[in-house]
Amino acid sequence: MKSKSFSGMKCSIASALELIGDRWSFLIIRDMSFGVRRYDDLRQGLGISPATLAAKLKHLEASGLITRHRYEERPPRDEYRLSDKGRDLWKVLFALREWGDRWDANGSGDVTIDMVDQETGGPLKLAIVDETSGLIVSPDKIALRAAGGADASTHRLLGFAKRPDVDVRGDVAGA
Amino acid sequence: MKSKSFSGMKCSIASALELIGDRWSFLIIRDMSFGVRRYDDLRQGLGISPATLAAKLKHLEASGLITRHRYEERPPRDEYRLSDKGRDLWKVLFALREWGDRWDANGSGDVTIDMVDQETGGPLKLAIVDETSGLIVSPDKIALRAAGGADASTHRLLGFAKRPDVDVRGDVAGA
Repeated sequence: MKSKSFSGMKCSIASALELIGDRWSFLIIRDMSFGVRRYDDLRQGLGISPATLAAKLKHLEASGLITRHRYEERPPRDEYRLSDKGRDLWKVLFALREWGDRWDANGSGDVTIDMVDQETGGPLKLAIVDETSGLIVSPDKIALRAAGGADASTHRLLGFAKRPDVDVRGDVAGA
Repeated sequence: MKSKSFSGMKCSIASALELIGDRWSFLIIRDMSFGVRRYDDLRQGLGISPATLAAKLKHLEASGLITRHRYEERPPRDEYRLSDKGRDLWKVLFALREWGDRWDANGSGDVTIDMVDQETGGPLKLAIVDETSGLIVSPDKIALRAAGGADASTHRLLGFAKRPDVDVRGDVAGA
């Protein structure tokens, strides 16, 4: 069954999710970001059925997140690479990994991969910075404002966020 | 049809996606992070069917991402709030929005919401910082290392990343 399309939604989050696809697609991008390129390597690592993998790769290629390259003619064999657009999803993957580690999403109490500074070995995290000054901004200083492309559903959501007991980073302030 | 469970995977990204659910769940969390709490408000905003919304809310509650509160007894009416764990997904949503804006995911050429500093109005972005020093680290300085909980599939992925032409932030360095 095909999922309902989000392509009518103007929200960047909805549209990003539409381009990525489903959860399998996130894991394909994860594996490709580690350098996995070949169909068989993807299939083995993910334990995904050939039909599902083929469908996800087709979707990711149509979304412009991956490109296909033939590396062997007989028999025909393709490998896949992240495009600049696909590679740029690394912050989304970083955020998911950081959250999963912090909340012990896999339930094992263990972290499998540390994200560290290549030179110092120090642990890294995502933070909000001011694009102009490059200074770190505390999450409680984030404001969301309607931009030029805001439509009715944007204004509706921002209306909820204006209620005095709501914190735009997530529901009730201090709750 | 139920999706294949990722719960056997030890990866934090796979486990995080398993706890969140599907793309609808991301949008429910997005709307709740704006302060939307009531079933009817969620349903109207998302244009989602009652059965799908109920199933997603049940999954999010079971994952510990939202909590349910009865606000009216006759007729029984519940509202939903993000838990600390659910609220903490804001960086994932920020990363998706940032990516969607940068790559014009909705195809309109327009941005709907600006993420700015409350005080200065300056644009904000996600960056990598050293947890100890608080200094911003360039993305090309990120290294991924096996941690205590690394299993065979972790080591397999890290093996791909060790190839000299692979950049851990996403496939081929400089490509």
